[in-house]
Amino acid sequence: MPGGSGRLACVGKNAYMAGMDGTESAPIAHQHVRFTGGLTLECGVTLPDLVVAYRCYGRLNAARSNAVLICHALTGDQYVIERHPLTGRGGWWENVVGPGLTIDTDRFFVICANVLGGCMGSTGPMSPKGDDPNDLWGTDFPPITIRDMVRAQKKLIDHLGIERLFAVTGGSMGGMQVLEWAATYPDHVYAAVPIATAPLHSAQNIAFNEVGRQAITSDPAYAGGLYWRQGTVPERGLAIARMMAHITYLSETALTRKFGRRLRTGTAVSFAGDTFEVESYLQHQGSTFVRRFDANSYLTITRAMDYFDLAAEYDDDLARAFSGTKTRFCVVSFSSDWLFPTAQSRDVARALNRAGANVSFVEIDSDKGHDAFLLDEPDFHRALAGFLSGCAEHAGLP
Amino acid sequence: MPGGSGRLACVGKNAYMAGMDGTESAPIAHQHVRFTGGLTLECGVTLPDLVVAYRCYGRLNAARSNAVLICHALTGDQYVIERHPLTGRGGWWENVVGPGLTIDTDRFFVICANVLGGCMGSTGPMSPKGDDPNDLWGTDFPPITIRDMVRAQKKLIDHLGIERLFAVTGGSMGGMQVLEWAATYPDHVYAAVPIATAPLHSAQNIAFNEVGRQAITSDPAYAGGLYWRQGTVPERGLAIARMMAHITYLSETALTRKFGRRLRTGTAVSFAGDTFEVESYLQHQGSTFVRRFDANSYLTITRAMDYFDLAAEYDDDLARAFSGTKTRFCVVSFSSDWLFPTAQSRDVARALNRAGANVSFVEIDSDKGHDAFLLDEPDFHRALAGFLSGCAEHAGLP
Repeated sequence: MPGGSGRLACVGKNAYMAGMDGTESAPIAHQHVRFTGGLTLECGVTLPDLVVAYRCYGRLNAARSNAVLICHALTGDQYVIERHPLTGRGGWWENVVGPGLTIDTDRFFVICANVLGGCMGSTGPMSPKGDDPNDLWGTDFPPITIRDMVRAQKKLIDHLGIERLFAVTGGSMGGMQVLEWAATYPDHVYAAVPIATAPLHSAQNIAFNEVGRQAITSDPAYAGGLYWRQGTVPERGLAIARMMAHITYLSETALTRKFGRRLRTGTAVSFAGDTFEVESYLQHQGSTFVRRFDANSYLTITRAMDYFDLAAEYDDDLARAFSGTKTRFCVVSFSSDWLFPTAQSRDVARALNRAGANVSFVEIDSDKGHDAFLLDEPDFHRALAGFLSGCAEHAGLP
Repeated sequence: MPGGSGRLACVGKNAYMAGMDGTESAPIAHQHVRFTGGLTLECGVTLPDLVVAYRCYGRLNAARSNAVLICHALTGDQYVIERHPLTGRGGWWENVVGPGLTIDTDRFFVICANVLGGCMGSTGPMSPKGDDPNDLWGTDFPPITIRDMVRAQKKLIDHLGIERLFAVTGGSMGGMQVLEWAATYPDHVYAAVPIATAPLHSAQNIAFNEVGRQAITSDPAYAGGLYWRQGTVPERGLAIARMMAHITYLSETALTRKFGRRLRTGTAVSFAGDTFEVESYLQHQGSTFVRRFDANSYLTITRAMDYFDLAAEYDDDLARAFSGTKTRFCVVSFSSDWLFPTAQSRDVARALNRAGANVSFVEIDSDKGHDAFLLDEPDFHRALAGFLSGCAEHAGLP
């Protein structure tokens, strides 16, 4: 039982991840909480049974005022700083979160939940529709939105007995959730740090997502979305989607520095069967991804990203999304991020300014592209740590 | 017989395009010339029989000094300003080439050849290996290079009795050929206009190409490259490759202007089965492409692009590729082109400067992305027309 809070009980085991690699692998038990009241989604459909899988790190203080919610990106999950149960690899933000680190678990109680629609224990396409554990949602899983994800997280936060989050942060799609948290629950968020994100998904973002979806649904192993019934996985399609997306996460400079035109075999191009290093790297990215991610989740979550347009929820006025907010904001972008360019973060900062919010905006000079928020970027870590420290002081946190 | 030159005979019909849409459609006869001496490629393989399909516009003057060779891009072809025999659509550069236009066919004799490895009549994977017209190269087609493409074009130019081209121009992969022409045959090129191109294919360029190739070869209809034997086409894979590539041809601004977040159905996102306009646009781009392009050609030509590294052919010194050149250069880039960014054109211009070449460099301010060279960009057309006029004057062309 993490977090040291007596109320934070793991109420059961969630075992619906079996068979993702096409074999009858042992089910994975994700720490989770079940809300039998369900959740009515923005599309109007009610999920009768809502499970939110999550992990916590650090200790919740007596005042329950030191909680930091981390929102993960499209293919991230709740395993922020621990061994991933499927891949065996370390957590995706181990360089940022931990004792004495930027998000200091000696000071903060860190929570991360698998998003609604995900495939690491929270309710999603691989969850049972009802009582029959073998009758999964699959393609019947309703369309969800970033706001739906946030509303599911809010239930978790309520369950944990936390009235106000000290901070909400996350990059990319995680940053969208941060913005939605601040807009939907302004009184429950003391500080918000949206990172490498945007107030809407652009036409180019949608276009890349759509190509990924086409790759998945075109794979015959996708079987109209019923692959899980036949124990298969649309590996090729999912890998292609991942390969393409991965290019968009890196800058041209980063790819050139990492791989340039180096060949995997030999030094000079012989024009016969040569493989460039960047090709095998991408192929590796694709093939490892399919072992840990569900195709229908990928379709569902990318759709949620595409739907995201925060201003549209507020009469096309982004400032109105934050009117009267008391939340303190630090908007972070990276100079070489071409998937969520700085201009989009600047739009967020401007809207916050128009709303009279307390906002700082920092563009980190980096040549690592969108993925910079996951990498060692000392300037970013310093900015994040400094902002959180300042806010903690203002909030009277020890 | 085009061009008004008595020597420019079409020596036969080339009928190896049948069945590309999986049906026994009527073969298309492309104007072409056959070189029975074949061509030995850089990889060492000799193509015993070389066919170069081409089209000409305008009249070759008596001195044979007014020829402009246009080199087409990856998925372009020789049908520059006329109805395409497969799609029925107009030529890809009708806004640039024609009587009184930027490349004035009242003044210049314009030639465009389908590239080696292509699928519009020049020798490529859909060509017969030998005498049996049903025994095609397919995946046995050897790897080719941009230089191989240029050497095939040189044979055509020799055949047409043209000692020196007045100009060579082209965008994207066409620009790579322009650079290779100037490097390999400096005495045969009076003026060179490489447009929206680069002296090498970057890691990011290779990465995008590789994803496209994976999409094609992952399609079960690809059948290990033998789809043509069974009368099928890897339509889904080829369409996905095209969709992804198409995103890279446009800028984020262009996509936003063209489509924004507009929906195909209704005005507000209902989170249920909505389709964004950009999605259906891309799907259309993909589905129309498969009707006119061969999958093995796509693999072969993208590989040739990936191999391209002009400096590597000259001891990693790009200036040496042009040492002593008398060719006049105009290097053109577009400010919003992120596939072949201006920095790469600037590298070409700098190398030409180091080589003491006569070079002008112009970055056209445009928000249309890489495809700007195909679109209505008055500044670009003015720059191109001005450069060609100046060169024509210097060359003593009427």
